[in-house]
Amino acid sequence: MSIWYIIDLVGTSVFAISGALSALSKKMYHDIIAILFIGFLTAVGGGTIRDVIMGAYPIAWIRDPNYLIVIITSVSLAVFCRKWWRGALKRPLLIFDTIGLGLFTILGMQKALLVGVNDWAAILLGIITALFGGVIRDTLVNDLPLILDRQLYVTPCLAGALLYQLNRFLGLDSTFNLILSACLITLVRLIAIRKDWTLPRIEN
Amino acid sequence: MSIWYIIDLVGTSVFAISGALSALSKKMYHDIIAILFIGFLTAVGGGTIRDVIMGAYPIAWIRDPNYLIVIITSVSLAVFCRKWWRGALKRPLLIFDTIGLGLFTILGMQKALLVGVNDWAAILLGIITALFGGVIRDTLVNDLPLILDRQLYVTPCLAGALLYQLNRFLGLDSTFNLILSACLITLVRLIAIRKDWTLPRIEN
Amino acid sequence: MSIWYIIDLVGTSVFAISGALSALSKKMYHDIIAILFIGFLTAVGGGTIRDVIMGAYPIAWIRDPNYLIVIITSVSLAVFCRKWWRGALKRPLLIFDTIGLGLFTILGMQKALLVGVNDWAAILLGIITALFGGVIRDTLVNDLPLILDRQLYVTPCLAGALLYQLNRFLGLDSTFNLILSACLITLVRLIAIRKDWTLPRIEN
Repeated sequence: MSIWYIIDLVGTSVFAISGALSALSKKMYHDIIAILFIGFLTAVGGGTIRDVIMGAYPIAWIRDPNYLIVIITSVSLAVFCRKWWRGALKRPLLIFDTIGLGLFTILGMQKALLVGVNDWAAILLGIITALFGGVIRDTLVNDLPLILDRQLYVTPCLAGALLYQLNRFLGLDSTFNLILSACLITLVRLIAIRKDWTLPRIEN
Repeated sequence: MSIWYIIDLVGTSVFAISGALSALSKKMYHDIIAILFIGFLTAVGGGTIRDVIMGAYPIAWIRDPNYLIVIITSVSLAVFCRKWWRGALKRPLLIFDTIGLGLFTILGMQKALLVGVNDWAAILLGIITALFGGVIRDTLVNDLPLILDRQLYVTPCLAGALLYQLNRFLGLDSTFNLILSACLITLVRLIAIRKDWTLPRIEN
Repeated sequence: MSIWYIIDLVGTSVFAISGALSALSKKMYHDIIAILFIGFLTAVGGGTIRDVIMGAYPIAWIRDPNYLIVIITSVSLAVFCRKWWRGALKRPLLIFDTIGLGLFTILGMQKALLVGVNDWAAILLGIITALFGGVIRDTLVNDLPLILDRQLYVTPCLAGALLYQLNRFLGLDSTFNLILSACLITLVRLIAIRKDWTLPRIEN
């Protein structure tokens, strides 16, 4: 059982929790089955789209039941522990979504590089892995898409992906590189929200 | 021509009609081509996503023109017969959508099991087959997604899928099992709407 | 380097520009990275969905970095030249979107025919290639979907696709056929908007 496999399961768990918290934070009616289903789609959506684009079959959660077990456990935990946050779901949702963003960008890029995609396509596939679980989640709960949010969203993923590629060419150890790049994404996104960092708006 | 093939075409017809009725029931402008296109996407959307996730090529409607013929006929029939319902499209739409829900959950699961997917992934692929035609339809006509509806939606599909798996392990004849499990889904969904059955809401 | 390859890159450029202009025309906040990302998804979305449905791997933009270079250049150009239009983005957006519609319908159909799809499925895959880049774009910027627009949208694509098939059976040169059919689509769509052409509305 490699370290990558464990990190992949951790990312899956984190995004499943973010999907569950997102469903919980909606005013609409939600029972446990709907929350599980949205948690599942959030967790596997981005990676599934990446693998389908690359034609990299079989897809992880179909081959390996551990992904589904991790998702069911994580969503149940999120639902069970929701009282701890006393309804203040916004902050934990943000944190889990942002950790997932960092992990999935880099893991998605790594998977794409393993399959033999060129370096630029790998960056895009990493970003798609990170963003499209959330896009599916937001579409299903009828939320505004986050892509055009004021705060930096695509930008931190791109920055982390570029850092990973740079370190790779410099020959950095790949586990260390993953942790470093994923942390960069998570930190830049969190600080951008906190400090209201933005790129210059492009006016018409 | 096997019984499965005929049932698959019946399910396709039912979902094509549900897509056409859904487009008709919108206030937006709709001509015959738009209605055909939405009927087509509703009918093939879920199954296409399932086959793409499994990498099970070629996909049925690309290999076999009968699917397209069935869709064009069904949508034309739905449009032609709309006067019978005198504008009361809500009830027939509901009935066709619900029959499609039952048939496609079980057919989707069966197809996944044939391809060699594990038992748990098969349940999820069945539910995805049933739900995503409708999700695509609702997204295109800009409807609220049904996943977070008060009434049971994912739950009946899950119940029917679990019943099918149970019967399969008990060695029940698979045609009989399909009919039984699909009827369970359709009935539970219809009764849930009628009697306003819900699972307990999970409060924040 | 064949003529088809160049036309495909031109179509990619045109749709990338349409995606960028669409993002620019929104009131929401948009920085250069978000605009690039939406331009990219608009340009490659439809073709990616077509190839994934056919299982035609590897997909063009993953195999060939030129697509990404064309997209980055086109979006940058669109952003840089936006002053020329003095905020009147509606007209250029319409023109680029409509040229893309024509090119991608026919190119998508041609690609499907090369892969060996039947004639009817090829028409549908052509329409999907042309429409789904825009559908992804509109979903991400939270726009109303254009499928149910008053003005003809699916219809011109269908007309052009049918003309292409007819000419193909008559043995017309395929480059000439492409130009003819793509122009028909673009013209019908533009005139339909100008003259407010519609198909008869189907009343409930």
